[in-house]
Amino acid sequence: MLDRGKVYERIERDVSSHIDRLISFIRQPSVSPQDFGVRDAANLLSEMASNAGLKDARPVETSGNPVVYAELDVGAPLTVLVYTMYDTMPADEPGWSVDPFAGTIREVDPFGATLIARGAVNTKGPLVAFLNAISSIVESGQEPPVNIIFAAEGEEELGSKHLPEFIRAYESELRRANVLFFPSASQNSKGKAIVTLGVKGIVYFELELDGKEWGRGPTEFGIHGSNKAWVDSPTWRMVKALSTMVDDTGNEVLLKGFYDDVSVPSQEDELLLSRLAETFDEAEVKERLKVERFIYDLHGVEALRKYLFSPTLNINGIWSGYTGPGSKTLLPNKITAKMDIRLVPDMQVERAMQLVRRHLDELGFSEVKIRQLEEGYSWARMSVNSPYTKALLRSFAEFGVEVEVWPTMAGSAPFSMFAAPPLGLPFIDGGMGHGGLAHSPNEYLVIAEGGPTGGLISMEKSFVAILDNLSQLQDEPFSK
Amino acid sequence: MLDRGKVYERIERDVSSHIDRLISFIRQPSVSPQDFGVRDAANLLSEMASNAGLKDARPVETSGNPVVYAELDVGAPLTVLVYTMYDTMPADEPGWSVDPFAGTIREVDPFGATLIARGAVNTKGPLVAFLNAISSIVESGQEPPVNIIFAAEGEEELGSKHLPEFIRAYESELRRANVLFFPSASQNSKGKAIVTLGVKGIVYFELELDGKEWGRGPTEFGIHGSNKAWVDSPTWRMVKALSTMVDDTGNEVLLKGFYDDVSVPSQEDELLLSRLAETFDEAEVKERLKVERFIYDLHGVEALRKYLFSPTLNINGIWSGYTGPGSKTLLPNKITAKMDIRLVPDMQVERAMQLVRRHLDELGFSEVKIRQLEEGYSWARMSVNSPYTKALLRSFAEFGVEVEVWPTMAGSAPFSMFAAPPLGLPFIDGGMGHGGLAHSPNEYLVIAEGGPTGGLISMEKSFVAILDNLSQLQDEPFSK
Repeated sequence: MLDRGKVYERIERDVSSHIDRLISFIRQPSVSPQDFGVRDAANLLSEMASNAGLKDARPVETSGNPVVYAELDVGAPLTVLVYTMYDTMPADEPGWSVDPFAGTIREVDPFGATLIARGAVNTKGPLVAFLNAISSIVESGQEPPVNIIFAAEGEEELGSKHLPEFIRAYESELRRANVLFFPSASQNSKGKAIVTLGVKGIVYFELELDGKEWGRGPTEFGIHGSNKAWVDSPTWRMVKALSTMVDDTGNEVLLKGFYDDVSVPSQEDELLLSRLAETFDEAEVKERLKVERFIYDLHGVEALRKYLFSPTLNINGIWSGYTGPGSKTLLPNKITAKMDIRLVPDMQVERAMQLVRRHLDELGFSEVKIRQLEEGYSWARMSVNSPYTKALLRSFAEFGVEVEVWPTMAGSAPFSMFAAPPLGLPFIDGGMGHGGLAHSPNEYLVIAEGGPTGGLISMEKSFVAILDNLSQLQDEPFSK
Repeated sequence: MLDRGKVYERIERDVSSHIDRLISFIRQPSVSPQDFGVRDAANLLSEMASNAGLKDARPVETSGNPVVYAELDVGAPLTVLVYTMYDTMPADEPGWSVDPFAGTIREVDPFGATLIARGAVNTKGPLVAFLNAISSIVESGQEPPVNIIFAAEGEEELGSKHLPEFIRAYESELRRANVLFFPSASQNSKGKAIVTLGVKGIVYFELELDGKEWGRGPTEFGIHGSNKAWVDSPTWRMVKALSTMVDDTGNEVLLKGFYDDVSVPSQEDELLLSRLAETFDEAEVKERLKVERFIYDLHGVEALRKYLFSPTLNINGIWSGYTGPGSKTLLPNKITAKMDIRLVPDMQVERAMQLVRRHLDELGFSEVKIRQLEEGYSWARMSVNSPYTKALLRSFAEFGVEVEVWPTMAGSAPFSMFAAPPLGLPFIDGGMGHGGLAHSPNEYLVIAEGGPTGGLISMEKSFVAILDNLSQLQDEPFSK
């Protein structure tokens, strides 16, 4: 039996060195979309995992960025695959109030000391906190109560391109795991723990119309804008093509068959939804996102049902021609849109992409090219009644925080690749702590205790508690 | 009587110093859309105009960039307003094979020595060539055969924002002019002189949809893409708004009333069009623009009629959200499109902008904001039978080159501001020489003689010839 008290004491005593570890990892950029610092971060993380007490920590090569892999077999009945990622989004968008790679800690009302940095919450903060938790167990003279398999990928922000390759290569190692745990910060800004039981799937692609391939419009470069009078515009043509894909609100997808495979929320889903609606803090969410109203002015359970159970077709970015200051006249030769589809049960990535191609072809836009940026990945779901979910919920209860159970999150996470065949692993996701603005300027993670949310100490303790509560499941069947 | 022979001799003898002047002016950037080097260029140009023999050369302040103004009153019966511009487009687009501000001269087949630089043809080359022509007249011991009023603006690539202000301030000076002359390179790549008798009008504006003003979508920054499921997308909404403005081909404008004021080409226009179609080198144009086919696969007179007599609504550029590498998921808070309308007789700028606003409002897109970047300017037209046009045509005949008369160009030029009330000046536009790729990478101007086109020497001589032929009009009425 793990003596948690000794571990917690250790965490409290060592908090300043734990913060230092986090800051030093923040200072090592690992921006996979820009291939900036990723490999150095992998090497540093291997060293950190080793120092924390994990064995055989090493970067495992893939055709892309390495997966940092480590193990710790303590002879426990239960083996937990700790999946996480060490790469981050770029940080060159305007709006940062600090150097995003400096590891700046500022007093932020009402949280207290808060780390403002790229990767703070997504996901260097929770990652380092997890390693701190393991090292605190070891330094308290104990062993983790479960066997650990640690796998941190370096391409999560690239759609986990080569994670399938790693899973195939390490299938026999990964098969030893009973459950996947993704350490993260579950608390919202008021301290309530948000537990999500699933993820949507995603496939990311670019649509492009290039005069060269179209055989219309300028074929090699943008030409003087006056030529619009007798030369076709790839830009206008793409606008027309895109506009056929959604209705006037931009919210209903018009690809034929897009909603065919969408399953109706289950009885459990509806139960969770209506419970969720009772505690769902709509004002907090809107304030955090800086959003005044939801689509169709929905509120409460209707807004939540849309958010969690509807698939989307989004334009993440679009560009063509002259985008600088002033009034350059140009007939552009090319336009590109970055798009994604979020999948809900029982949609399939491959079929979704087929619908896009068929739609464009049937409406006469066969000149619009689709460039799928990665394989994409599936949605995944867990029951609220799974023993693993129960162990997670018990952990939050032990910290005395209110818990809100979400039947799924609206986002996607590549750990669904472990939930899908051939591994079919059950999964849990969470921990104490609060952060925000992932993928935006001024991404943050609360460090201080004593505010409305837990800080780094609480997060580390909660990871210990989660592992410990998982280990208590020995008498229950390790069902999925 | 001007002894042209002596002037031509001087031009030939001094050609290398004339090239040096051009290169030194190229090396002084004057990128008005980026406010890069413009004022230094104005000062340098004043000095160059002075050195060429013009009097009282000076930058005339406006609320924007100065107009470089000079005069030379030789007591001649005819006064020519030489209008030109010293500013250029930016040069930071990819595709340049040389430093665009270095003034690189390369052997280019079949032209021979060719200047490749931003501003080479638009319009530093012809501007410096004109000053070289004046200085050669003076250095040959003679006077120009006409009085000169020289006005070079520094905001042509900003839509000549403050040119109306200059015209108002200098109205009494400008009223002394009988005709406006815009020195330019008229020859196509095979040496044929293209004479255009008019310009289209233009108004440039941005359409923008910002979640903040809309009250829907993200209001302050782009947020995680998964929020598309319950948050509106300004990007999708703008795509829908834009797509209502043109038909599926992108070629017919659907703004109600857009074509109401378009006048049918006159009998003279049709005559010129059918003559033009006989010599129009469609293959040369398509090769130069790197365009495989015109809209609707039009050819010959039909293509030309579209090009010259139809108004356009163009997207010069559009951008929203994440446009970098990889697959960042984002729900953008804003989308902007740079648009322009080209006006043909008898369309009016103000009414065209009203149609855009009314269209958006009537279709329920009142949240799309219009930001008109400048006043815009009118179309302008001259008759082929005007004495000034005849003087221009006579000049090309003297150089023995084939001439192709176009009833108008498809582009716009702010000299129409001088053609409009209150000045109502007639205008001519042209000269020997060839260049291309204005507004594109590798903009060029042929320097060498002996290729299929005239070079710098021919250009300078032709400007002398044009002034001289204008001065011969003394016996004809100075009709407009």
